[in-house]
Amino acid sequence: MGADIGNSRLDPPIRRLAPLGSAVGGDLSFFNDPRYAPQLAGTRASAVIVREQDAGRLPAGCVALVVDDPYLGFAAAAGLVQARREPAVAATGVHPAAHVAPTAKLGRNVVVAAGAVISAGASVGEGVAIGPGCFVGERVVLGAGSRLVANVCVYADCQLGEQVLIHAGTVIGADGFGFAREGEGWRKIPQLGSVTIGDRVEIGANCTIDRGALEDTRVEDDCIIDNLVQVAHNVRIGAGSALAGCVGVAGSATIGRRCLIGGGAGVLGHLELADDVVVSPMSLVTRSIRQPGFYSGSFPLMDNSRWERAGAVLRQLPDMRARLRALEKLTRKPT
Amino acid sequence: MGADIGNSRLDPPIRRLAPLGSAVGGDLSFFNDPRYAPQLAGTRASAVIVREQDAGRLPAGCVALVVDDPYLGFAAAAGLVQARREPAVAATGVHPAAHVAPTAKLGRNVVVAAGAVISAGASVGEGVAIGPGCFVGERVVLGAGSRLVANVCVYADCQLGEQVLIHAGTVIGADGFGFAREGEGWRKIPQLGSVTIGDRVEIGANCTIDRGALEDTRVEDDCIIDNLVQVAHNVRIGAGSALAGCVGVAGSATIGRRCLIGGGAGVLGHLELADDVVVSPMSLVTRSIRQPGFYSGSFPLMDNSRWERAGAVLRQLPDMRARLRALEKLTRKPT
Amino acid sequence: MGADIGNSRLDPPIRRLAPLGSAVGGDLSFFNDPRYAPQLAGTRASAVIVREQDAGRLPAGCVALVVDDPYLGFAAAAGLVQARREPAVAATGVHPAAHVAPTAKLGRNVVVAAGAVISAGASVGEGVAIGPGCFVGERVVLGAGSRLVANVCVYADCQLGEQVLIHAGTVIGADGFGFAREGEGWRKIPQLGSVTIGDRVEIGANCTIDRGALEDTRVEDDCIIDNLVQVAHNVRIGAGSALAGCVGVAGSATIGRRCLIGGGAGVLGHLELADDVVVSPMSLVTRSIRQPGFYSGSFPLMDNSRWERAGAVLRQLPDMRARLRALEKLTRKPT
Repeated sequence: MGADIGNSRLDPPIRRLAPLGSAVGGDLSFFNDPRYAPQLAGTRASAVIVREQDAGRLPAGCVALVVDDPYLGFAAAAGLVQARREPAVAATGVHPAAHVAPTAKLGRNVVVAAGAVISAGASVGEGVAIGPGCFVGERVVLGAGSRLVANVCVYADCQLGEQVLIHAGTVIGADGFGFAREGEGWRKIPQLGSVTIGDRVEIGANCTIDRGALEDTRVEDDCIIDNLVQVAHNVRIGAGSALAGCVGVAGSATIGRRCLIGGGAGVLGHLELADDVVVSPMSLVTRSIRQPGFYSGSFPLMDNSRWERAGAVLRQLPDMRARLRALEKLTRKPT
Repeated sequence: MGADIGNSRLDPPIRRLAPLGSAVGGDLSFFNDPRYAPQLAGTRASAVIVREQDAGRLPAGCVALVVDDPYLGFAAAAGLVQARREPAVAATGVHPAAHVAPTAKLGRNVVVAAGAVISAGASVGEGVAIGPGCFVGERVVLGAGSRLVANVCVYADCQLGEQVLIHAGTVIGADGFGFAREGEGWRKIPQLGSVTIGDRVEIGANCTIDRGALEDTRVEDDCIIDNLVQVAHNVRIGAGSALAGCVGVAGSATIGRRCLIGGGAGVLGHLELADDVVVSPMSLVTRSIRQPGFYSGSFPLMDNSRWERAGAVLRQLPDMRARLRALEKLTRKPT
Repeated sequence: MGADIGNSRLDPPIRRLAPLGSAVGGDLSFFNDPRYAPQLAGTRASAVIVREQDAGRLPAGCVALVVDDPYLGFAAAAGLVQARREPAVAATGVHPAAHVAPTAKLGRNVVVAAGAVISAGASVGEGVAIGPGCFVGERVVLGAGSRLVANVCVYADCQLGEQVLIHAGTVIGADGFGFAREGEGWRKIPQLGSVTIGDRVEIGANCTIDRGALEDTRVEDDCIIDNLVQVAHNVRIGAGSALAGCVGVAGSATIGRRCLIGGGAGVLGHLELADDVVVSPMSLVTRSIRQPGFYSGSFPLMDNSRWERAGAVLRQLPDMRARLRALEKLTRKPT
């Protein structure tokens, strides 16, 4: 029996999703990135999701599924496959080895796994899933449909919106890094704010989002955050922004809406980034950015010996500029 | 009833701490950083902690609380607020779902939460709080008044001082990264040292501090370490130093006292940093630093197209210097 | 009683391993790195593992243990010390406070600690040790002799080889960072692949290795990965490669065999690195590398004021090059 996808009846039916290069008969693939054009021409997939203009580039016998946005189309197909594979929730109810404080309020269809701890006064929305080893602090609010995968910690008073997904090992609401020098040591500044996270936010594994000093650290609706990302106290991240892996945002920085921060990039404290700012991987933002645009600041990769020479000359750059000016002055005189 | 702070009786009484910009009547704020001068002039706070020289800049009706160090003063005020809000310890005693080895020694007033594991021979000082999901290895020593927040792991034989605070997800004492090449693979070097942490150290969330190969990795008294910081084996961090988020310190490096290492910075292995060294964010320390001072080494942020051009020319820097020399020689000749 | 090491009978016997600089009588040390030559000459160790050519540089009375590779020799000695100190496994069997699904299959001599959760359909090989707070997802396969130290999470369907060691807090198989823009928000791309890890792999603490979008993320045999390393979806890391702390590898990158990636370095998505590529710490790989070799790209560290000036001139580099060309043209004309 062949599968019906849009108007196309496929034979053999689609059994799997696969990348163009490794797909075989029975696989569905997609073509979105022109870099993969050679693999499109040679694919053995039974069908490929493509834009209209690319439909003619498929090999003979391969069915084109034409859509406006092949990556979105692929996302939809993957969603179908996943839905078939996983039951929505494997278990339901509170595991006998979970620890739920008597004053915590649990909505309907909440799942709490073994070893999870839910503290006094916490409020857990309908359909929330709290995985093994998670810690939910006092008075925490978890919006409906959210999920903490495993070993996630949410400190007291933090508030998460609806349909939020937090991957394993992430820590929400640890104390911001606030200290005043006092003699040879430090005086800790109590961090009295908390963390507010909007709806439909996804946060990767082993991230850290600190609580605010006075007001809340805020991650607005529809933000996506990759793994090992550090968000310091009082930061505000605008709706729909994306932070790739290993990004660090220092205290009190404000990031606009729909920003894209590349992997390993850093944003210094107290800066403001406008909406629609794109920052390249491993760049350090050292000043506020008022205009949307694409900003970069990483050192180019070189063969090591070339890099050593370039680095040595780099230290002399101000001197070189002075010498260049002197030469210009000199050569201008005779004329 | 108005609050008494120093000599000033405030009406309305102080109910909350807030930043200058968002404070309203009943709020106490502070002014420490000149960048916030415009917000000081317009603040609606009922009182502001300021230096004497700034007391005259407050808007009419706003009470000045004059101190030498407004940030320290604010820390004290925040401490008062926090003390009123949180009971010192919510629960006491060992939770029935905690697992404490019979040979572990627990001091007075120790709190051990559900799901925590304390191994054989561990020694837990008076007033220590061990949160849910924490793992304390064999023979670990935790000094009086210390706190492991949640899901903290301390491997066997590590020693923590008094009043140490470790945030969630941090791992103390994992094996240092020691391997010798053997054929196509690696031979692991057993890591026989452990980790020694001094008094009043605070370590953020999801950090990693590896055990030494032979001797201990050491974090001395009064150090503060932010989130997602990596401290490799055999490292020594001098008293009173601060490491901001995402810093990485490679094996056997020694950092002096009162150093400040900016976020995302790196220190290569086997280097020595003097006391009072300040390193800018995302700089890489590639040589020992013998003199106190302020050191930097990050690529400046640029508009992407300018960065692409600058990067291309950067590769040619040694060539440009040679050409500059040739020109200098040429223009010197005629004179 | 003296120890017998190779042909040498030592008196006093060796009691401890120690670095050259801090060793005392009864200690065994090793000399591998020429930087430590001054410490070799002055060491108080009773014996030192050295290459033949260095044997004559030991102080009088210090026994030379001559080997081809002193670091490997030291690894062997450390292994002996460790074996004497630690029983192979402290406990055996499944702790009553562990949670093992009825359909999980456990091999012989498996150890499961308190608070660990093993999900339905998981397959745990002979001699595997699963520490406190670990989460093993559905259908996960753990090869014989592997160890998850504590609070490790392995998501559903991931497969680990034999003799794999995963340190605390590491997360294997979280969703890759795959999203398609949809209006102001994002549509999640279900991540249908998993993670495959080969034999004899060691992964440090608080790392994240994401599951693939369609196919598996792969870490081949004999790889070693330090702490806080991020490996994104669809990445492939060739056998025998080493990734130092805080490295980030973006999606679909392929790293060859025996590569060495320095601490804090980054590799952009979809790139390919040949075998035997070495990348310096905190360098960003922005293009595929087809040739083995040593590549670098970090900004040199400078005194801050020099760095500020160099950075300012850096922005003007393309302009400087143009002016240099103009001068060359000008000076060429008259001749």
